[in-house]
Amino acid sequence: MKRIQQRIFELLEVAHPDDTSSRVTDLFLFVLIALNVLAVILETVEDLSTQCAPIFLFFEVFSVAVFSVEYVLRLWTCTQDERYAHPILGRLKFAGSWPAIVDLLAILPFYLPMFLAIDLRMIRALRFFRLLRFLKLSRYSESMRIFGKVLRSERAELLVALFVAGVLLIIGSSFLYIVEHDAQPEVFSSIPSAMWWGVATLTTVGYGDAYPITPLGRFLGAIVAIMGVGMFALPAGILASGFAREMDKRREEPEACPHCGKPLESAEAD
Amino acid sequence: MKRIQQRIFELLEVAHPDDTSSRVTDLFLFVLIALNVLAVILETVEDLSTQCAPIFLFFEVFSVAVFSVEYVLRLWTCTQDERYAHPILGRLKFAGSWPAIVDLLAILPFYLPMFLAIDLRMIRALRFFRLLRFLKLSRYSESMRIFGKVLRSERAELLVALFVAGVLLIIGSSFLYIVEHDAQPEVFSSIPSAMWWGVATLTTVGYGDAYPITPLGRFLGAIVAIMGVGMFALPAGILASGFAREMDKRREEPEACPHCGKPLESAEAD
Amino acid sequence: MKRIQQRIFELLEVAHPDDTSSRVTDLFLFVLIALNVLAVILETVEDLSTQCAPIFLFFEVFSVAVFSVEYVLRLWTCTQDERYAHPILGRLKFAGSWPAIVDLLAILPFYLPMFLAIDLRMIRALRFFRLLRFLKLSRYSESMRIFGKVLRSERAELLVALFVAGVLLIIGSSFLYIVEHDAQPEVFSSIPSAMWWGVATLTTVGYGDAYPITPLGRFLGAIVAIMGVGMFALPAGILASGFAREMDKRREEPEACPHCGKPLESAEAD
Amino acid sequence: MKRIQQRIFELLEVAHPDDTSSRVTDLFLFVLIALNVLAVILETVEDLSTQCAPIFLFFEVFSVAVFSVEYVLRLWTCTQDERYAHPILGRLKFAGSWPAIVDLLAILPFYLPMFLAIDLRMIRALRFFRLLRFLKLSRYSESMRIFGKVLRSERAELLVALFVAGVLLIIGSSFLYIVEHDAQPEVFSSIPSAMWWGVATLTTVGYGDAYPITPLGRFLGAIVAIMGVGMFALPAGILASGFAREMDKRREEPEACPHCGKPLESAEAD
Repeated sequence: MKRIQQRIFELLEVAHPDDTSSRVTDLFLFVLIALNVLAVILETVEDLSTQCAPIFLFFEVFSVAVFSVEYVLRLWTCTQDERYAHPILGRLKFAGSWPAIVDLLAILPFYLPMFLAIDLRMIRALRFFRLLRFLKLSRYSESMRIFGKVLRSERAELLVALFVAGVLLIIGSSFLYIVEHDAQPEVFSSIPSAMWWGVATLTTVGYGDAYPITPLGRFLGAIVAIMGVGMFALPAGILASGFAREMDKRREEPEACPHCGKPLESAEAD
Repeated sequence: MKRIQQRIFELLEVAHPDDTSSRVTDLFLFVLIALNVLAVILETVEDLSTQCAPIFLFFEVFSVAVFSVEYVLRLWTCTQDERYAHPILGRLKFAGSWPAIVDLLAILPFYLPMFLAIDLRMIRALRFFRLLRFLKLSRYSESMRIFGKVLRSERAELLVALFVAGVLLIIGSSFLYIVEHDAQPEVFSSIPSAMWWGVATLTTVGYGDAYPITPLGRFLGAIVAIMGVGMFALPAGILASGFAREMDKRREEPEACPHCGKPLESAEAD
Repeated sequence: MKRIQQRIFELLEVAHPDDTSSRVTDLFLFVLIALNVLAVILETVEDLSTQCAPIFLFFEVFSVAVFSVEYVLRLWTCTQDERYAHPILGRLKFAGSWPAIVDLLAILPFYLPMFLAIDLRMIRALRFFRLLRFLKLSRYSESMRIFGKVLRSERAELLVALFVAGVLLIIGSSFLYIVEHDAQPEVFSSIPSAMWWGVATLTTVGYGDAYPITPLGRFLGAIVAIMGVGMFALPAGILASGFAREMDKRREEPEACPHCGKPLESAEAD
Repeated sequence: MKRIQQRIFELLEVAHPDDTSSRVTDLFLFVLIALNVLAVILETVEDLSTQCAPIFLFFEVFSVAVFSVEYVLRLWTCTQDERYAHPILGRLKFAGSWPAIVDLLAILPFYLPMFLAIDLRMIRALRFFRLLRFLKLSRYSESMRIFGKVLRSERAELLVALFVAGVLLIIGSSFLYIVEHDAQPEVFSSIPSAMWWGVATLTTVGYGDAYPITPLGRFLGAIVAIMGVGMFALPAGILASGFAREMDKRREEPEACPHCGKPLESAEAD
């Protein structure tokens, strides 16, 4: 029993490179999650959801079954992890950990209508909770881990850039509101409305549903656009350089443990 | 008396990290300023401003009261600063300094209608002067300080980039005016009008209210767009690299004085 | 015979810098390919294709004749290359190599209607297969080679950035679909439809055919835009830095063999 | 006579920093050129050009007078430059040099109608030739010189990036033409028309006058947009890094000759 529990624990965890069946389990779960996200996306296409209703239903039941078994097995085997070693308290602690909550949220929307009286609109909303299964990917995705690391290491720069961008957005939008409100009372009805123009302009998206039409408004808008473009491009530049640094670090330390992502030979914290 | 004055001076200035009550004062003023900006923004939403008129009024009176007391206290205690030590001349000098003028402008719009006969349109305009309270943030915002430093250190590059971008904007817009004027006399009515197209194109905002429709105009417009995009992205690149350099410098000198932001161990000017 | 075969092989291959007639052959083929692409582009302009039909036809026949002769000569002389030395197996192996397949695809659309009964619609589609002649350029284009190298060396970074961007695209579009579906059932009819908005927004193209109109949708859309712009600009930053590194490497090793592009003095693999 | 000639030569050339009257001359000409460009821009605004016609006319006559005198004086004094030392051949050589041709083109549009019978439409076109006076700025503008240097040093990278971007533009536009032509025969009437969509998309301008509407067209368009954005942002990244390098070089060699811009102590060519 103990050995079965340990083996299942190994299978479910991110695999050692030489543990083939564990890698197959990982791949299977990874693909199943990806297909689930795809299913939620495709189900919103009306033609597809009516024509292929049985397929979607079968796939949903199958997925929930797999994820439920996965959740139960994880709860059972988590005591193999020394952090959750205690048979009861350890399992409770594990159930309260972030990955376990995500796993639970991924299956809960399926079971909830069985136990609770939920009206139809609620059920429709619950369907999108299935998108939370996306979060299950974070366990397998190296990309997300790298990205999270970059975000954390560049936190200070990003906050400064966001603060400055926010100040510029508010000031620019307020100016445009003052100048354009009388000419376009619909589009620039309030400063929050003007901020919709501001975001569209400063990110350079420019949908074309809101733009100044008075000469003064255009002059100010042009200045805001020219000044703002640089400021809103800052986070991209910061992320790109943080990224380059992170990847360089990885290239220099290729002997990382494939299990935990930490370098094998050095004990320094990252 | 002297000691009370000194204590109040300390409370109002940016706090030493171990002076808890001073930090609370800073935080209180910071939040109050942010809420004031938010109030100005929300007050422009008509539904809100009619429904919650009493709240907005109370908050405005409360804020002006606090800022007025703050201003008077700053004027009283500024003699603690050796630059403004003289009881009368020092206070006048302080009243003429940039932060004190900002503080005054932040409350003046409230008192002005009491002393001067101002028509209603003027009062409406005065309301937006309250956005100047935003500037009070600069005292507390490290972000703004860092950003200002980057702007100053990259001044030369930014000016070159802006000059080249300006030349491109004028030349491109003139060409488009010449080519498109006859086909679209409304949109490309003059070179300044064509420059509205130019700014929207070169910043890649592209609202869609102005674009060439003749084949030659499109050809020239495409060339301007392709060439110009690189030029208008230059300031962003320059800012990003200046930013990275500034943050690297800060990381290397973590022992900065939290009071004034200058490094403690080195006496070199920044 | 043997010597003629070798000379033709040399003429067709990318030239040694001091082999003038081989360089002329390269230039001739390069220009002919470029003109072919131009012809396909211009032929779609109706006025031109009817007025200059004979010119287009003559040019097409001439080009196919040249490319056919080139293909046959390459097949005949490929045995000069030691990889394809065997008279029959070598030629078969060469015919199955990527450049030879491209060469064949470039002329096949012309001959196909002669041998097969193809309806008119098919013939029209075949015309665009001529754009495949573009791929013949890759033999002569140093630019494409450099670019391919950069893509390969930055593969890891690009994949991470694309994955994160994809996740953001799906999550952002799903949110907007949920929020905007009832207000704009046409534009946000399904998550795939919402992803069209997502791509237009996150790449900052912003055509203006799809944008949120509800306050909540605009708020979420603004957040997605601000967050996403940085993420979608990442690949550009990654490519730019990879590019700079590659060009620096080239500048340091100017003694590269002009025939194969590999450095002459060092034997290290790239 | 000789000394007057030399003094005028010094006055017209870019000034030594300690030659005050020469610097004043430079500044006067610089401002006059800038005002001329401004005049051409403002003259296209119909209200202004009718109301202030006399002012514009006076300013034009004044400017042409100054520029004419400047041109004649330059022609007279150019023999002071050792390259144009010969009294006749030297002056002819100078008249054929780029700056002298620009100077001539800047005044010619004014004199031409006096000597040649030119119809009215031609005269209107000639007016815009005055924008060529912009080019006279290049003599005084350090920014343009720096920018030109960056362009030259990054030539190789920029060409590669432009070539790859061009290939992507042609391939993407052809695909969209094939897919969207039947659904939107007006907008995607030919590949050149589709390239207008391509440029607007790949530069992320996105006017919104051309975009795919079929599902397949949107799918392909999205892929082109995602791929292309990175490629079209490359030149910006290349320029930015070239710029940073150039400015770093300048900072390290602050002792540059203000007359010619070359470093004083080192004799190395740039």
